[in-house]
Amino acid sequence: MTTHNFNAGPSVLPSEVLLRIQSELLNYHGTGISILESSHRSKEYELINQRVIERLKRVLSLPDTYKIGLLQGGASHQFAMLPLNTLTTSNCGAYVLTGVWAEKAYEEASRIGAAHVAASSKVHRYNQLPAISEWQIPANAAYVHITSNNTIYGTQWPELPRTEHALVVDMSSDIASRRISYANAKMIYAGAQKNLGPAGVTVVAIAEDFYQQMHDEAPQILRYSTHINNQSLFNTPPTFSVYVLDLVLEWIETQGIDTIAQNNLLKSSAIYSTIDASGGFYRGHSTHEARSHMNITFRIADESLEPLFLQEAQHHNMIGLAGHRSVGGLRASLYNALPYASAKALADLMREFQRKHG
Amino acid sequence: MTTHNFNAGPSVLPSEVLLRIQSELLNYHGTGISILESSHRSKEYELINQRVIERLKRVLSLPDTYKIGLLQGGASHQFAMLPLNTLTTSNCGAYVLTGVWAEKAYEEASRIGAAHVAASSKVHRYNQLPAISEWQIPANAAYVHITSNNTIYGTQWPELPRTEHALVVDMSSDIASRRISYANAKMIYAGAQKNLGPAGVTVVAIAEDFYQQMHDEAPQILRYSTHINNQSLFNTPPTFSVYVLDLVLEWIETQGIDTIAQNNLLKSSAIYSTIDASGGFYRGHSTHEARSHMNITFRIADESLEPLFLQEAQHHNMIGLAGHRSVGGLRASLYNALPYASAKALADLMREFQRKHG
Repeated sequence: MTTHNFNAGPSVLPSEVLLRIQSELLNYHGTGISILESSHRSKEYELINQRVIERLKRVLSLPDTYKIGLLQGGASHQFAMLPLNTLTTSNCGAYVLTGVWAEKAYEEASRIGAAHVAASSKVHRYNQLPAISEWQIPANAAYVHITSNNTIYGTQWPELPRTEHALVVDMSSDIASRRISYANAKMIYAGAQKNLGPAGVTVVAIAEDFYQQMHDEAPQILRYSTHINNQSLFNTPPTFSVYVLDLVLEWIETQGIDTIAQNNLLKSSAIYSTIDASGGFYRGHSTHEARSHMNITFRIADESLEPLFLQEAQHHNMIGLAGHRSVGGLRASLYNALPYASAKALADLMREFQRKHG
Repeated sequence: MTTHNFNAGPSVLPSEVLLRIQSELLNYHGTGISILESSHRSKEYELINQRVIERLKRVLSLPDTYKIGLLQGGASHQFAMLPLNTLTTSNCGAYVLTGVWAEKAYEEASRIGAAHVAASSKVHRYNQLPAISEWQIPANAAYVHITSNNTIYGTQWPELPRTEHALVVDMSSDIASRRISYANAKMIYAGAQKNLGPAGVTVVAIAEDFYQQMHDEAPQILRYSTHINNQSLFNTPPTFSVYVLDLVLEWIETQGIDTIAQNNLLKSSAIYSTIDASGGFYRGHSTHEARSHMNITFRIADESLEPLFLQEAQHHNMIGLAGHRSVGGLRASLYNALPYASAKALADLMREFQRKHG
């Protein structure tokens, strides 16, 4: 029986990718050794490394001038690296707060330099996104930081906001999930463990002009230039995670980003339409305008039914549906690799559950 | 035909571990999903995480009071984290230079605070270790840093030096390779990709009193306390690498550290005895006293024969025998998981090669 994996990350991977990993685990491409045992200086690994960099540019439709880094430490590490590479005594970082991760990015920057809250929807329990017209960005801001998709509150920017300042985007939870314009993004970063692969590798893409403005005050290992000047081979990279990232990117390219996006829309529609048709039995956290197609956070109006719902979901082999520890309730993460059938199965269960308990 | 994997890291893994990974890759312990898809908040992963922490204490014979961290970024990241967590305006870090990695650790510390060279064997092309009696450690040193095994120059401390100062040891390339006393080590760290598992996870162990002396001036993600106070689950860990680390530690425990150590000695003896019996045809880089049992770096007296040797080695399915880019020559890395048969095969080839070309 299929397991429906709604984990918020690390999360579901394409079954084709898992089968491929398994089939070549003991002998990678005739080398006689596992890719786990391969040197990062080997021809095989250097090919993977280079291919991932090229695939990322293609999948994200990034201009060739963008600098790509394959780093470690997750988005939380980027919360520190970004200000460490850009803030000085005379500028600041501006942050748009739309949830827990944006708050954490802001707080980390505050420990490193001057950080400024440009806007926040906290007063609305982060169920919406601050209108761009109301952002207040200091003239000396080196960048404006946003989180493109908010896993805990289930909101997502419909497109990347246009601003005169350099936009830096934490895309950990919706990278490569749709075709959007990066024209205004000077830097994006994402932990791979949601839409791109396994935990352990973080993707960074930096526009040439923004990269040139960075300074070299940080410790060597924390400078973007250290990694980018060495094609992300300055020190031993997380080779297996990068290998899986390559396979997932290949899977995305084979389908095409538009097919991926369409599927994601079908999946989220299956759940949202069930919520909307429930007459208040289910309540989505986000306003309609800000709804995320990656993470749907919702409650049952009678919250005391939620443990029972999770129990029934488990009986149907659905995992990962409990809301984040910090907010409770229910959450369905519908990342790229989640099949439509899983979203459909959840929508069916939701209707059946309402029929029995509504 | 067996491939003999002499890679310096990432490197050979136990075949039992690879088979186990392959067999449970699609369905981890009946969960219906791959461990690659498992949340780091799942029961399954939390068990792995906790087990690794306990296994590390047992395998390394560390007192239970040591704080264990499972981090990312490799040893190079520790080069920055150590001074970021310990240096102030009134102390310094003292470094014993025994090779490229020690130099890098020292240079990174210099960018962060005051760093002092306590001793160096650079003048001897790092073919030996500075006598402990000659170390010059400033009175205000917060620690003395050494590299226990030097992969590029093939030297290794026979045991951890005794000093009145807090000893911090980069054990990336010989951790868990033998039974040694950690009594004097206040902190050890190691990238896993040589003796402990795959790339992508870094092991840190800190004595309670040294840990208590650390400060909280660094960005949150770069503080040891952030990770240790959260059982290394502050942010998404490199879950698959930690999973493999668990399997390798289990493999070590099953054999016992003394069996591992004995095997390592047999392997290195097979090569060193061949070098010593070659009448100068092969020349080891290290002095006898400082010889590493993990990485044997050597040259053929007639260096022009080295490309031919590497070619013949390749015909015998031996990989990873070229010396580090920075020094050239030949290097055989004999980490825990390398079978004795591989070392024996190399020794045989060396004798055969000398017979033909000597």
